[in-house]
Amino acid sequence: MADTAITPTRAQNYPEWYQQVIVAADMAENSPVRGCMVIKPWGYAVWENMQAVLDRMFKDTGHVNAYFPLLIPLSFLEKEAAHVEGFAKECAVVTHHRLKGDGNGKLIPDGELEEPLIIRPTSETIIGHQFAKWTKSYRDLPILINQWCNVMRWEMRTRMFLRTAEFLWQEGHTVHATAKEAQEETLQMLDVYQKFAEEYMAMPVIKGMKTPDERFPGAVDTYTIEALMQDRKALQAGTSHFLGQNFAKASEIKYLSAEGKEEFAWTTSWGVSTRLIGGLIMTHSDDNGFVAPPRIAPLHVVIIPIYRNDEEKAQVLEYVQSLAKDLKNQSYVGSGIRVKIDDRDMRGGEKAWQYIKQGVPVRVEVGPRDMAKGEVFVGRRDKGPKEKASQGRDAFVQGIGSLLQEIQDGLLERAKKFRDDNIKKITSLADFEKHFTGDESSAPGFALVPWCEAGVGHELLGKLKVTPRCAPLNQEAVSGNCIFSGKPATKWVLFAKSY
Amino acid sequence: MADTAITPTRAQNYPEWYQQVIVAADMAENSPVRGCMVIKPWGYAVWENMQAVLDRMFKDTGHVNAYFPLLIPLSFLEKEAAHVEGFAKECAVVTHHRLKGDGNGKLIPDGELEEPLIIRPTSETIIGHQFAKWTKSYRDLPILINQWCNVMRWEMRTRMFLRTAEFLWQEGHTVHATAKEAQEETLQMLDVYQKFAEEYMAMPVIKGMKTPDERFPGAVDTYTIEALMQDRKALQAGTSHFLGQNFAKASEIKYLSAEGKEEFAWTTSWGVSTRLIGGLIMTHSDDNGFVAPPRIAPLHVVIIPIYRNDEEKAQVLEYVQSLAKDLKNQSYVGSGIRVKIDDRDMRGGEKAWQYIKQGVPVRVEVGPRDMAKGEVFVGRRDKGPKEKASQGRDAFVQGIGSLLQEIQDGLLERAKKFRDDNIKKITSLADFEKHFTGDESSAPGFALVPWCEAGVGHELLGKLKVTPRCAPLNQEAVSGNCIFSGKPATKWVLFAKSY
Repeated sequence: MADTAITPTRAQNYPEWYQQVIVAADMAENSPVRGCMVIKPWGYAVWENMQAVLDRMFKDTGHVNAYFPLLIPLSFLEKEAAHVEGFAKECAVVTHHRLKGDGNGKLIPDGELEEPLIIRPTSETIIGHQFAKWTKSYRDLPILINQWCNVMRWEMRTRMFLRTAEFLWQEGHTVHATAKEAQEETLQMLDVYQKFAEEYMAMPVIKGMKTPDERFPGAVDTYTIEALMQDRKALQAGTSHFLGQNFAKASEIKYLSAEGKEEFAWTTSWGVSTRLIGGLIMTHSDDNGFVAPPRIAPLHVVIIPIYRNDEEKAQVLEYVQSLAKDLKNQSYVGSGIRVKIDDRDMRGGEKAWQYIKQGVPVRVEVGPRDMAKGEVFVGRRDKGPKEKASQGRDAFVQGIGSLLQEIQDGLLERAKKFRDDNIKKITSLADFEKHFTGDESSAPGFALVPWCEAGVGHELLGKLKVTPRCAPLNQEAVSGNCIFSGKPATKWVLFAKSY
Repeated sequence: MADTAITPTRAQNYPEWYQQVIVAADMAENSPVRGCMVIKPWGYAVWENMQAVLDRMFKDTGHVNAYFPLLIPLSFLEKEAAHVEGFAKECAVVTHHRLKGDGNGKLIPDGELEEPLIIRPTSETIIGHQFAKWTKSYRDLPILINQWCNVMRWEMRTRMFLRTAEFLWQEGHTVHATAKEAQEETLQMLDVYQKFAEEYMAMPVIKGMKTPDERFPGAVDTYTIEALMQDRKALQAGTSHFLGQNFAKASEIKYLSAEGKEEFAWTTSWGVSTRLIGGLIMTHSDDNGFVAPPRIAPLHVVIIPIYRNDEEKAQVLEYVQSLAKDLKNQSYVGSGIRVKIDDRDMRGGEKAWQYIKQGVPVRVEVGPRDMAKGEVFVGRRDKGPKEKASQGRDAFVQGIGSLLQEIQDGLLERAKKFRDDNIKKITSLADFEKHFTGDESSAPGFALVPWCEAGVGHELLGKLKVTPRCAPLNQEAVSGNCIFSGKPATKWVLFAKSY
């Protein structure tokens, strides 16, 4: 066995390491359909845990779920000019509604549609059409809807979880009577995303507003949470859009105000996707595989019974079944501990390495000697694979909730330190160029620079493959000039190489 | 106000009544995309409750969730002859991957694909392709997977929930080493569906095997649960397929046995969809709207405060908030009571009718006089809208779990009696014809007839628009001849007009 379970290591080849972690943890694989992935059970279990938490947070902020059509008439997309511009180049188009034989034993499309339909890349236009029917009076507002679904964007370069042609996501869509309410909603959902990323995924994020060139097509303002991966590239982890009246005008979402006047409504949309799983992998995983933060881990504890013969096996299994039962009755973040006994006939070490690669927070090995002493042999995924220690069985059971939270907190703290260590203030274009020039395979983290709107689209950015990530919401007063335009700076803006 | 909240009534025009119940309960609406519906929050909340129960039942029987691509290469569909035959005429076909301007301000499809892709009508072929990679040795078996997703079948005549071009469903797909194990899985999942339909939806079903002409395209055996709607038409509510080695051969799902021999595996698939919501509506609803069985109702109890002025309002609201809190702490089927206080400024009667139409099991009205007496005024959705009664507040709170179960049991009992009253044994073709001849708008229920395989496709069936529903698994010994072929009968088979 190599020194590490994953080859290559992060230092050797980060992009390839990422793919190999996904393989080793058995989370996903490529499919025969270009750019579409298969989310395997372990990866999907992470998504289910993420969904459950997010869904609860959306409902606690007053939203309800609904479902709208997968297919969107082409003419709907045309209604909002910036929107169609943003999505036309990556739409899967349905043109026929049946198949027929070609006479040579092959099938060909048949039944051409009068108007082609596109598979939703996002649902503002089709949901807007329905909202226009639902919105008659100010009494009908706000409308607070979320949809869990699949969407499709025909990306040319794909990478599992991070960028795939089809992905799973949630898209919130809301309608309000005033700009103020819509803006508050936009920021409220950004807070929800930050809370989720940090408290559940242990992935620290910076909340900010996108610069105009990075806005969602059709939005007035786009807000984002930006995370930093271990290769010091940024990841846009979630976005929340204040759409102003743009989509309300495109879809005719109007209401009668309390004063009896017809007004266009104000809308928002916000979404996170299976891309978050890519961010999760790249935030915590190490050269031995995936590291799952306890709060969203498919399993909290795996128990590996160790024995040499059938007699020992029977005794050990009885012991670990009672251990598993007691663990399940303990609680962590409001629900039970997720425990599994792996009693397959395989070497214990082989099993242990499987769970290390899959990122299970706590491994417990129990053999006859541990039993005799009333002990368990405990390994933590956030420590080295050999750093295991004996512990009294009952103390371990009683302390499991605290142990999981300790692991959770440790992951966030480590990631936060890494992120904070990799933000640098830069106040000249020369320093900016120097900062971002170097080996293609690594990146130097975030640069925080004085910026103004006239600096958008500077040619150096394309050359360096660097993009503005956001103007952090929480920022110091800025002075001096925008490093790109030379004009007085209006904001600090974060730049980075990114996914 | 008319005598009933829904116009027309069931007796006047059943199909239109069904549509109007959906409108009145605000569960769904048609979309601008042909045959695709919008599932509105109240309808989607029912689906979420159904999903939660089914998902738990699937996991308790050892299944895990995963996700496979929406799009399927045309060539995959061609691999199984019966399968392609069954689905080719209703496939949405993706032929292009972007849009471009036509020079006249309109968008047209661009970027033609080398091989067209179809939107999954079901996923046997794409999942089979992945299973072939996952299945190397008998040690990898069984594989027990479920997928929650959307699918598309381009139906020509659609009806909300019952038959839509796009629908939501779950599709289970499993791989086994032996025919026996696959058959056991097929029947196990049929039992799960029956349990769900009867214990949660309060919808009695008959488990049976489909006749050969009604099998899933590519299946060896298709099992079904069949329900009877209030217009005495049957509804296929869920199916479970023993696929033999048909799809294993088409997708090359092979494994090395314990004896080191390469074998084709045996597969199953099984699914239920949002169609169940249509069945739910048609099983319990009445001329005042939807009736939600408590176990899957979005809300269990709605509280309507009654007051004449602000002073009364404050007092009553305080009283109902404490009532709601106490109700929430009671439990029903392992979780809390779902309670809402409706304090909108509207007439109490108007509110009450909204919840009657939406099918909330229990309505509670509370005004100053009820408060003074420590009472609540309770209406049950399974009784007439005027049959309301006063009850002591604490007794009502203590008894809410039992009351909900009483309502649940009553719905099942009523539906079961209706179903049982509408099954008739028929042993001659003349009686069969007489039984099913009559007004187009109504149906006479199930006919149970002696049948043999040679009777498949009798011309009378098409003329009467009657189909074989299933051979009930639980059946008496059959004697005499098949009424269609005149040859010795092998089974009793249920026939009906159906959805």
